[in-house]
Amino acid sequence: MNLNRPLILASKSPRRKQILENTGFSFIIKEKEIEEIYPSDLPIHKIPTYLSELKATAFEDELKNEIVLTADTIVSIENQALGKPKNQQEAIEMLQLLSGKKHEVITGITLLTKENKITVSDTTEVYFKKLSSAEIDYYIDNFKPFDKAGGYGIQEWIGYIGIEKIVGSYWNVMGLPIHKVYQLLEKYFI
Amino acid sequence: MNLNRPLILASKSPRRKQILENTGFSFIIKEKEIEEIYPSDLPIHKIPTYLSELKATAFEDELKNEIVLTADTIVSIENQALGKPKNQQEAIEMLQLLSGKKHEVITGITLLTKENKITVSDTTEVYFKKLSSAEIDYYIDNFKPFDKAGGYGIQEWIGYIGIEKIVGSYWNVMGLPIHKVYQLLEKYFI
Repeated sequence: MNLNRPLILASKSPRRKQILENTGFSFIIKEKEIEEIYPSDLPIHKIPTYLSELKATAFEDELKNEIVLTADTIVSIENQALGKPKNQQEAIEMLQLLSGKKHEVITGITLLTKENKITVSDTTEVYFKKLSSAEIDYYIDNFKPFDKAGGYGIQEWIGYIGIEKIVGSYWNVMGLPIHKVYQLLEKYFI
Repeated sequence: MNLNRPLILASKSPRRKQILENTGFSFIIKEKEIEEIYPSDLPIHKIPTYLSELKATAFEDELKNEIVLTADTIVSIENQALGKPKNQQEAIEMLQLLSGKKHEVITGITLLTKENKITVSDTTEVYFKKLSSAEIDYYIDNFKPFDKAGGYGIQEWIGYIGIEKIVGSYWNVMGLPIHKVYQLLEKYFI
């Protein structure tokens, strides 16, 4: 698949890189440090698109011919937004909260060019079985999920043994709803 | 996780091997050639458990202390069961049939010991977007999905760009509902 413009993935997530690579698009990675701050009264489901737009904004003044792709993923449960756990204790608390329940993983993506900005979001429901303390401790000790929203990676041990069901896109849970990225790139840039 | 008996995975699928490895169980692979024949009047949703039991039966007379795990996966759509495509033409026809529709992936698993046999099945709904002929041809030419039920691998290009949603276990679509395998092994063999 050849795009008619250069594509920039503005994310340091190795998972987003891997997923985008697997679709066969050529791209480079270029990330800008952005403080991920959103208004405290923003509804949870709007946080990811707010932040993906914010990340894209940082590129606004320098784009010539390129397409910039940004993304932001959060976990939403019981009216709380979970980002990345700061430490072991926070990771334990997040997994205890997710244990035995359904939560939502929401990713916002923004495609920015000099002329246009397209933002969409995707939601996947994830159902965890009841996790034992031993399972939570084993996972955090061995996988150190401090770079992952909600404190887990679906593609890791905890996802294999603990997730009973998802409703939506699997790749969205990993951080990039690739079917929607493909659809937009194909529609506008091929 | 240490099991109290040796575990044998009786499958030549590299995907099942990979999934079971990722749960951390030790096992060996031992496969027996079995003709996968089932009664023509068997309801589609019973085919996978019928075949996983058939595959397990081949081990019945030689088990001492071991647990044998067998599995069978089919794709079910519009009252047809799709197995592995025999050639390019069949692969094209299968993907044309799946295009723009929902289908079900059903995996049967059997755990056999000298004393007991446990069989369960797991179903995942998969929703494909409308696939173009170019997409179908590109996928089959490059990925040659002749070892995969329904003619596709969810973890391959076609899964990234073409699957909009699943309802159920992702690993089940790849051929092994690992959360159920783990649950049974943990319950009976730890």
